[in-house]
Amino acid sequence: MKKKINIGLIGLGTVGGGVVKLLRDNADVITRRLGIPVELKAAADLDESRAKALKLGKGIYTKDAYKIINDPEVDVVVELIGGYNPARAFILDALKNKKPVVTANKALLAMHGEELYRAASKAGTSIGFEASVGGGIPIIGAIKQGLAANDIQSIYGIINGTSNFILTKMTDEGRNFGEVLKEAQALGYAEADPTFDVEGIDPAHKLAVLANIAFGTPVKFEDIYTEGISGIKPDDIEYAREFGYKIKLLAIAKVVDGEVEARVHPTMLPDHYLLAKVDGVFNAIYVVGDALGPAMFYGRGAGDMPTASAVVSDIMDIARDMIHCSHNRMPALGFRSEGRKPMKIMPIGKVRCKYYMRFAALDRPGVLSTISGILGRHDISIESVIQKGRGTENAVPIVVMTHEAVEKNLRSALAKIDKLDVISDKTVVIRVESGE
Amino acid sequence: MKKKINIGLIGLGTVGGGVVKLLRDNADVITRRLGIPVELKAAADLDESRAKALKLGKGIYTKDAYKIINDPEVDVVVELIGGYNPARAFILDALKNKKPVVTANKALLAMHGEELYRAASKAGTSIGFEASVGGGIPIIGAIKQGLAANDIQSIYGIINGTSNFILTKMTDEGRNFGEVLKEAQALGYAEADPTFDVEGIDPAHKLAVLANIAFGTPVKFEDIYTEGISGIKPDDIEYAREFGYKIKLLAIAKVVDGEVEARVHPTMLPDHYLLAKVDGVFNAIYVVGDALGPAMFYGRGAGDMPTASAVVSDIMDIARDMIHCSHNRMPALGFRSEGRKPMKIMPIGKVRCKYYMRFAALDRPGVLSTISGILGRHDISIESVIQKGRGTENAVPIVVMTHEAVEKNLRSALAKIDKLDVISDKTVVIRVESGE
Repeated sequence: MKKKINIGLIGLGTVGGGVVKLLRDNADVITRRLGIPVELKAAADLDESRAKALKLGKGIYTKDAYKIINDPEVDVVVELIGGYNPARAFILDALKNKKPVVTANKALLAMHGEELYRAASKAGTSIGFEASVGGGIPIIGAIKQGLAANDIQSIYGIINGTSNFILTKMTDEGRNFGEVLKEAQALGYAEADPTFDVEGIDPAHKLAVLANIAFGTPVKFEDIYTEGISGIKPDDIEYAREFGYKIKLLAIAKVVDGEVEARVHPTMLPDHYLLAKVDGVFNAIYVVGDALGPAMFYGRGAGDMPTASAVVSDIMDIARDMIHCSHNRMPALGFRSEGRKPMKIMPIGKVRCKYYMRFAALDRPGVLSTISGILGRHDISIESVIQKGRGTENAVPIVVMTHEAVEKNLRSALAKIDKLDVISDKTVVIRVESGE
Repeated sequence: MKKKINIGLIGLGTVGGGVVKLLRDNADVITRRLGIPVELKAAADLDESRAKALKLGKGIYTKDAYKIINDPEVDVVVELIGGYNPARAFILDALKNKKPVVTANKALLAMHGEELYRAASKAGTSIGFEASVGGGIPIIGAIKQGLAANDIQSIYGIINGTSNFILTKMTDEGRNFGEVLKEAQALGYAEADPTFDVEGIDPAHKLAVLANIAFGTPVKFEDIYTEGISGIKPDDIEYAREFGYKIKLLAIAKVVDGEVEARVHPTMLPDHYLLAKVDGVFNAIYVVGDALGPAMFYGRGAGDMPTASAVVSDIMDIARDMIHCSHNRMPALGFRSEGRKPMKIMPIGKVRCKYYMRFAALDRPGVLSTISGILGRHDISIESVIQKGRGTENAVPIVVMTHEAVEKNLRSALAKIDKLDVISDKTVVIRVESGE
C-alpha cells in the first residue's frame, strides 16, 4: 500500500505556481479524501527565481526536467510549461517511464493528442487533462463519466475568457474592439500578442479536445473552421440587440447526419439563452445529451487557482488508481480505443444555420429587392430586415436575418452581391444559433 | 475478465422505465466506452403491467425483489422504488451480499444515509447516488472528483423543479401560488399531495446529501432548517422586483466560522445573478470552492431520461471498478471514513443574512419610526424602504430591506413589532443572499 503520492512538476509559471500553493494549502482536505498525502517531490523550471518566489522546500527545485521524468520516486509527472516543444518530448518520455501525466496543454493535445493518448495506453497508464478546457470547470470529467450513458449530440462552449471579456465590454459599453483589447491587455486578461485568443485558435484547440471525448472520434485542430472576434463592430452588436440576440465567440461541435460539425466563430445567440448571459472572463459549456437533454457547466476558465483546481483533481484521480492498482481504469478519451470510430468531419460549406448579414448598400431604389432576389436564387430566405438612415448619399446598412441556409449557398450569393455596384463594402456575416 | 455487467433493477416506475430504455437504446455507446456490455438481467416491480409496457425480454421480470438481491449473477442492484421501506432493507441486503448498489433515493439517504454508507464500506463495495440530486446534472461526481482539491465553502442550489416551475410562473405571470400549483399538477410537474416539493422537504433531503459530500461531515435532514414556498405572495415577488431581486427556493449550505449552515427557504437573489435566471423545471447548483471560486451546474432536475442518465453513469462507474477490481475505489461520500469530521450545525438563530420584510401597518404618523426603532434596538439596520398606498383606512404595506443581521435578533424584533396596535397582520419575512 502506498504511503504517499509524489508529484514531479515541470513548469512553475502561473498555473504551476497555483499547483504548488494548492498542494500546500489544501493538504488536509486532499489527505482526508485520499487517505494518503500528495507531496511535491520535485519541480523544474528554467527560471530559478520562480522556484525562489514559491519558497520550495530543500532539494525540490531542479533546472533539469529529466531529473523528474527519470526519478523512480516520482509517481505523477505534471507538465505545465505549455507549447509544443519540449512539452511533447517530456510527456512522451514520462509515459515511456510508465509515469502517469497531468497536463493543461490544449494546444499540444489538439495537435499531437493521438500520439500522446496512444503512448499512455501503450504504457498502461493515464494522461489527465481536465485543466486543458474551461480552467477549473470539471467539464472533461463530466463528459467522460457524468454523461457517459448519453449519445452526446452537441456542445456549445464559451471557452475563451479573453474573447468573452472583450465582447462583454464591447456589448455593455458600446466600445470598439481595439480599445477594449488594450484594456484587456492592461488588466492581464489578454497577452501582448493576442492572436491565439481573439482569432479563435485557443478555443479551437479546446474544442478539438471536447469533441474527441464527446463523440469518441478523432477531431484535430485542422478539422475546425475558425474565425475570431477582431472583425466584430459595435454596430453589429447593436443590430444583434435589436433582433434580440447577443454575440458570443462560440466553439460548436455537433453530430449531424453522422458527420461531425466543428467550428469556432462569433455567433448570435437569443438573449434569453442562459449561455448568452455568461459574461466577462467566465466560461461555460452547454452540452446536449440524448438522455440528459441540455446541461450547462459554468465557472472560471483561467487563472492560477481555478486551473490548479483541475490539475490537482486529475492528480487525485490518478492517486486513487495508484492506491487501488486500477491503472488506466478510465481511458484518456472516455472511450476504449477499439470503441472510437472515425467520423467524417463536415466541411464548413455544408453547415446549415441562420445568418445575420449587414450589407453596405447605396440608397437606390430596388437594392433590397436585388439582394433578396440573389439570396432567393441561392435558396436563402429572409426572416427579417432592418433598414436605417435612408436618404443619404453614403452607403446605408441593410441588415438581414435569414432562415436556415447552407453555408456554401450563402457564400455563392455573397460573392455575387458584393460585386454589385450598389454595394460599397464587403458584407458582414455572423452565424446565428437559435435552436431552430 | 468480466464479459458483461448484469443489472438487477428494483422498481419500474418513471425512472426505472427510463433506465430500461437507456440501457437498450444506448447499448452501443455504453459498450464503446466500457469495452463490455451492460445488460438488464432482472427487473422487479409489484405491478406486472409496468414490465409488460416496457416489453422486457423473457425471464427478466419478477415480482420478488429478493430474486434479484440474492441472484449470484446480478452484478449491480439498482433501487428505484423510493421511500424508506422496503427500499432500506433491499439496499442493506444487497450490500450484505457484496453487491454494489445504485439509488436515486434522496429521502432514504437523508434519513438513513450513514447506515447505508457504513454498510457499503463494510462490504467493501460501493453505493452510487448521482441521481439523488439534480436529476441528470452530474453534481455528485463533480463535487467528489472534479472539485476534490477544493475546500468547498458554500453551495446554493435550485434543486426542486416543481417549486422553481411554480415560482417562475408566479413571477412571469403575476399569478398566485394556489392557481399555479393547480396548473403544475395538471401538467404532471407536481404531485397530488405536493407537500414534499412545495414545503421544501425534497430539497432539504437533497441538501443533506450535498452538504455531506461537500464538507466531509455528516448532515442529516433534521439538521436543516426548512421553509417552503406556499406562503409566497405575488406582492412580495413584485416588491422583490422593485428592489432588483428575484425569489427562488434555495437550498443553502455554507461553512461559517467552522460551523455548517444548512437551510432551505425562499430566498431573494439579485436579478443579475446567473442563478436567478434559472427558470422553469430546470435545476442548478452553484458551488464555491476555495481554489476554483464559483461554478454552476445546470440541467434537468427530474424526468425519466435525465434521471436515468445519472443512474446509468453510476452503473458505468461501478462497471469500471468491477473490470479493474478497484472495488470502492471512490468512497461513497468522496472522503475516506476516517477523513470525515463531525462539524457543529449552526442553529438557524445564529445565521446572518440580509432580510426583506413586509409589514402590514395602519397608516398612522410615526409607524415607520416605531418599527425602525425596534429594529435598531435589536441591532438591525435598514438599507432601504418602500412605502406605498398612503392615505387609506386599511393597512398599507411598508417594505424594508435590511443590512446583514442575526436571525435571532430579527425574530425578537418581529415578536415585538407584530404585537403593535398599528400592525394588522403577521409580518412577511424573506431572507436575502447577495454575496455581501
